[in-house]
Amino acid sequence: MELSFVRWLRERATPHRRVALGIGDDAALLADSPGHELVVTTDMLMEGVDFRLAEVSPQLIGRKALAVNLSDLAAMGARSVAAFVAVSLPRAGGERLARELYEGIFELAAEFDTSIAGGDTNSWDGPLVLSITVVGETPVGRAWRRAGARPGDQILVTGQFGGSILGKHLSFTPRLRAAAWLVEQATIHAAMDVSDGLSLDLSRLIGENGCGAELDLASVPISAAAEQLARSSGKSALEHALSDGEDFELILAVPPAEAERLLATQPLDVPLTRIGRFVDEPGLWSVGPSGGREPLAARGFEHRLE
Amino acid sequence: MELSFVRWLRERATPHRRVALGIGDDAALLADSPGHELVVTTDMLMEGVDFRLAEVSPQLIGRKALAVNLSDLAAMGARSVAAFVAVSLPRAGGERLARELYEGIFELAAEFDTSIAGGDTNSWDGPLVLSITVVGETPVGRAWRRAGARPGDQILVTGQFGGSILGKHLSFTPRLRAAAWLVEQATIHAAMDVSDGLSLDLSRLIGENGCGAELDLASVPISAAAEQLARSSGKSALEHALSDGEDFELILAVPPAEAERLLATQPLDVPLTRIGRFVDEPGLWSVGPSGGREPLAARGFEHRLE
Repeated sequence: MELSFVRWLRERATPHRRVALGIGDDAALLADSPGHELVVTTDMLMEGVDFRLAEVSPQLIGRKALAVNLSDLAAMGARSVAAFVAVSLPRAGGERLARELYEGIFELAAEFDTSIAGGDTNSWDGPLVLSITVVGETPVGRAWRRAGARPGDQILVTGQFGGSILGKHLSFTPRLRAAAWLVEQATIHAAMDVSDGLSLDLSRLIGENGCGAELDLASVPISAAAEQLARSSGKSALEHALSDGEDFELILAVPPAEAERLLATQPLDVPLTRIGRFVDEPGLWSVGPSGGREPLAARGFEHRLE
Repeated sequence: MELSFVRWLRERATPHRRVALGIGDDAALLADSPGHELVVTTDMLMEGVDFRLAEVSPQLIGRKALAVNLSDLAAMGARSVAAFVAVSLPRAGGERLARELYEGIFELAAEFDTSIAGGDTNSWDGPLVLSITVVGETPVGRAWRRAGARPGDQILVTGQFGGSILGKHLSFTPRLRAAAWLVEQATIHAAMDVSDGLSLDLSRLIGENGCGAELDLASVPISAAAEQLARSSGKSALEHALSDGEDFELILAVPPAEAERLLATQPLDVPLTRIGRFVDEPGLWSVGPSGGREPLAARGFEHRLE
């Protein structure tokens, strides 16, 4: 790493009560937080696969690389502590690009009290690759898992779905504030974040629980972006809401009385909506106003390794 | 990630007392370890920069990506707990390559009681990129830093130096066992690992301490590989030992009486050698048998960002 870039990074890396900045050391030191478990997540974004530098500002790419990890922490009910940033920069213009990436990372990190505590900065003749690992914490035994949903639990979701490609996939708010409130004040049986499409991720959630889910399609919160896409895509706004990826909202399994309370009081910085319930019988179902149900196909973004 | 690869990973990911494997969850959970600080390090390796797939087996590449992080933990006196593996695989043959990389990662992880606790597996039309983040721990207040060396401290090193390119750069043993013994049983004022060359890394160490170092060049432990390289490189074996990168041995600042004891008892699984001492006056010096000293150039691998 060139010295001026190291100096630039040091000047901008905010101090943090838990982190002894280890930039001059071989690794970063984080103070113990008694009574807490660690939650760790990692995500790698690649030029040409996850974004195109010709189309997106580096600040937004840096922001997103951190935000997808923060969304994973929110899905576990954790709060964020420190992030570690590894990057391979194209050789030409690498330092400028690095500064712009970090501007986006620093801004989101400051919003969620996350220290940029370490990293590894490289340059090469290849495309930009950005890999961020985030360390968070939850009180012992309080982390949400995907497993834990029970038949009868209500399916609650934060925010709206569909059409993320029109902008939200870059500018979304990881639901850490919502998760922090819920983990302290509510009973949540299971949770996950929606990265690959509402119906596909919901099918994964029931797969982890050996149960099924009935969706009330009329209640699925559809984003304005999904409505806008539907005008030209040949798909309905509801189809977009059910299958588009990168909403980064939370799906929560909530016992019925708790769900009633949360829906009535709306205590979060984002709307909570009931979209259905978990049932004994495995499978994903849509339920109409009359109560009749039909199988619902799980659609979304499938990751494949060839 | 293709399902068969996920299943393969799950079957091989060893259980660990500290880690609830989070493969089905959004992030990994690690149990708290009261009285300990966390030590976190991250390193990214790229095809064509750090290795060439045409020349090195994927097992050794995977091993090295983990080993460089473990060496950073050893330099802090930490022990390793869990690793997180993010990888971008070339699309053709990606799954086979991933399995081979992981074979090398798993083998070294098992040797050092490290759980592969999470990761992110991607494929693309670009070269292989492998980024590993390792979480370790030390008892509170016991981590070694680069700062802390005092004039009069002896400079001790583990192992031998130079010629790593002939093989050790791939097969080196991260000095975690040596560090674990020393952090419990000895007084170490400062430490770092040698990744970019003995004289260059030593010059960085004195830079962090505002002091100088006198090296007794006759006592620098020279590897057989450095001798072998010297036969055709036009450089002496000593020059290789002082400037070749990727030795991944430890430099330790040790108070004189403690140094005597360690050198006499040789308690580690690797030889300890005294190569000089820290002095008040800033700068790197070589000292001859007669006691006269001359400035010594710091040479090694300099990372540059263009």
